[in-house]
Amino acid sequence: MAAPTLYAVLLAGGSGTRFWPASRAGKPKQFLAIAGQQSMLAETAARLEALVPRERVLVVSTGDQAAWVRECLPWIERENLLLEPLGRNTAPAIAWAALEIERRDPDALQVVLPADHVIRPREAFQRTLRAATQAALDRTSLVVFGIRPSFPATAFGWIRAGEVLARVDGLDLFAVQRFVEKPELARAQQFLADGGYYWNSGMFVWSSAAIRAALARHVPELAARLTRAPARDFASTYAALETVAFDVAVLERAENVRMLPIDYFWSDVGSWDALQALAPPDAQGNSCVGGASVVALDSSRCIVHAPSGQLIALIGVEDLIVVQAGDATLVCKRERAQDVKTLVERLRVEQRSFL
Amino acid sequence: MAAPTLYAVLLAGGSGTRFWPASRAGKPKQFLAIAGQQSMLAETAARLEALVPRERVLVVSTGDQAAWVRECLPWIERENLLLEPLGRNTAPAIAWAALEIERRDPDALQVVLPADHVIRPREAFQRTLRAATQAALDRTSLVVFGIRPSFPATAFGWIRAGEVLARVDGLDLFAVQRFVEKPELARAQQFLADGGYYWNSGMFVWSSAAIRAALARHVPELAARLTRAPARDFASTYAALETVAFDVAVLERAENVRMLPIDYFWSDVGSWDALQALAPPDAQGNSCVGGASVVALDSSRCIVHAPSGQLIALIGVEDLIVVQAGDATLVCKRERAQDVKTLVERLRVEQRSFL
Repeated sequence: MAAPTLYAVLLAGGSGTRFWPASRAGKPKQFLAIAGQQSMLAETAARLEALVPRERVLVVSTGDQAAWVRECLPWIERENLLLEPLGRNTAPAIAWAALEIERRDPDALQVVLPADHVIRPREAFQRTLRAATQAALDRTSLVVFGIRPSFPATAFGWIRAGEVLARVDGLDLFAVQRFVEKPELARAQQFLADGGYYWNSGMFVWSSAAIRAALARHVPELAARLTRAPARDFASTYAALETVAFDVAVLERAENVRMLPIDYFWSDVGSWDALQALAPPDAQGNSCVGGASVVALDSSRCIVHAPSGQLIALIGVEDLIVVQAGDATLVCKRERAQDVKTLVERLRVEQRSFL
Repeated sequence: MAAPTLYAVLLAGGSGTRFWPASRAGKPKQFLAIAGQQSMLAETAARLEALVPRERVLVVSTGDQAAWVRECLPWIERENLLLEPLGRNTAPAIAWAALEIERRDPDALQVVLPADHVIRPREAFQRTLRAATQAALDRTSLVVFGIRPSFPATAFGWIRAGEVLARVDGLDLFAVQRFVEKPELARAQQFLADGGYYWNSGMFVWSSAAIRAALARHVPELAARLTRAPARDFASTYAALETVAFDVAVLERAENVRMLPIDYFWSDVGSWDALQALAPPDAQGNSCVGGASVVALDSSRCIVHAPSGQLIALIGVEDLIVVQAGDATLVCKRERAQDVKTLVERLRVEQRSFL
């Protein structure tokens, strides 16, 4: 019997302002070369090379981001670009792509990947993906990639791993005891201390049959609407869907969820501060991303981002984020990286440009 | 008897790198709008308005800076632009201009002003200048403007004031007891504590007769060479002159030096840090010069310089100098403003661009 065909879904519809001023006009980080030489979306697609051919890569994004998707992935087929009329969180997005693939190939396997994560090395990721497809061959399992936690994160959902069900391609496949929504700090610290907890990566592998069954059981109305939506009226059907996260609507309620751990480098690159881990720091601990030149006197632990041809000069400063992009320059204490969002909101409220 | 005619000499030949990256390609601060809406040279000329007509304003600069002088003062007459073939410090520059004015009008009065100082308000400066011209009418006095010191500066020469010789236009005219070259900190602190000491501003007023006599007595060879230099060979004559400061060669040895104090705002704008005093700080103490927009969250005592149309955003930072200019951005702790010079030297040694 031939091995089932593997399709990929890249979730590229997110929005965000934490990477201002590199991110402008609503162009969020998946379309930017924040962490490498090419956009995060292009790097996510490249991570699948040799495992999923381009004609089986689907991208879910919103209509107003279509041009950026094509900019990042010039080879994408029109039929593989699923453009939401507007964002409705991950449950509708994942369900739409999953049912579309199931329509094309009821026997297929599927991998769902956020388009704005950094994962290294590629070989290790592909090994996990191959193991996950093995695990999904039972046509009932929903396999989630769990990240071995390195700090008590309050920005991620957590997974309590259960027993090891099997060894797959040399990796442990865990049962999932339960999911925990983004916890308070004290609880996250407890999880870290207890062990056996992982971060929910939002990366999934399943068969067309398994995801159809899970959708039909846990979000029957969503599944029915998406299946029956007339092409001429798809936009209004989609817009009327409930805005809900896939984890909450489906994953937390499903019984056949399995987990494969990721022990190598993973980052959701949540803010400028995350770039420290992505760019090898120089001798003084300064990290430069984006191609700019940096010259530093007595400066350490800074994160610098600016395009090629720009120079960032640092004298006597520490723990700063310095970003130059177009007509704006950001200088931010590292511990305040989350507040870039606040600053952008203030620019918006004051109706200033530079957004 | 008609009042003597007043000529002005603007010394615009200085060089410097402390205002990098606004200052590039050897374009020093007198040609830049560092401290206001127009270049410091143009502001210096504007400070003379109503007292010295433009046709009696002479500018001393170097040949390679001529284009910048014309950019700042489009009205300058060719014959009033004295271009040194190369810089020879202030004694040759001042002597050249003084003897040139004396040649044109032996009866004239002269005011010599560095082109890179900020003085406010203009009316107060003009009052001091009018008093100085009164004092210089005796045809023997060399009048220097003394700055009432506000801190123990080690970057300026100091003047020990003697007795009050006269009241001129309501201002005290002091005898000068002695000049002190840039002192060590402890000595500067002593001067400040003792009182009766002033900073040497490098601004002078004298008659053509008085300066000719002083030059003939204290730098006779310099005066003779400049007077006799054949036009066709002026460059090589000038290049062969001794490189020496006017204060050392003439002023410190002259006996007929008088001083008028400046009690109002004066700054030689020695580094980015000096701009704090020039731009009214906002409620958080951040100073913005150069036309950029600034948006700040929990940031204080920063000095920001960038051209119009640029935004500088600050989050959680204090006591920084942030400068964006062309293809370079500087982020420097305020107390390290002097080290901009070091950084530029490093760029030069490493033969990098951005200079």
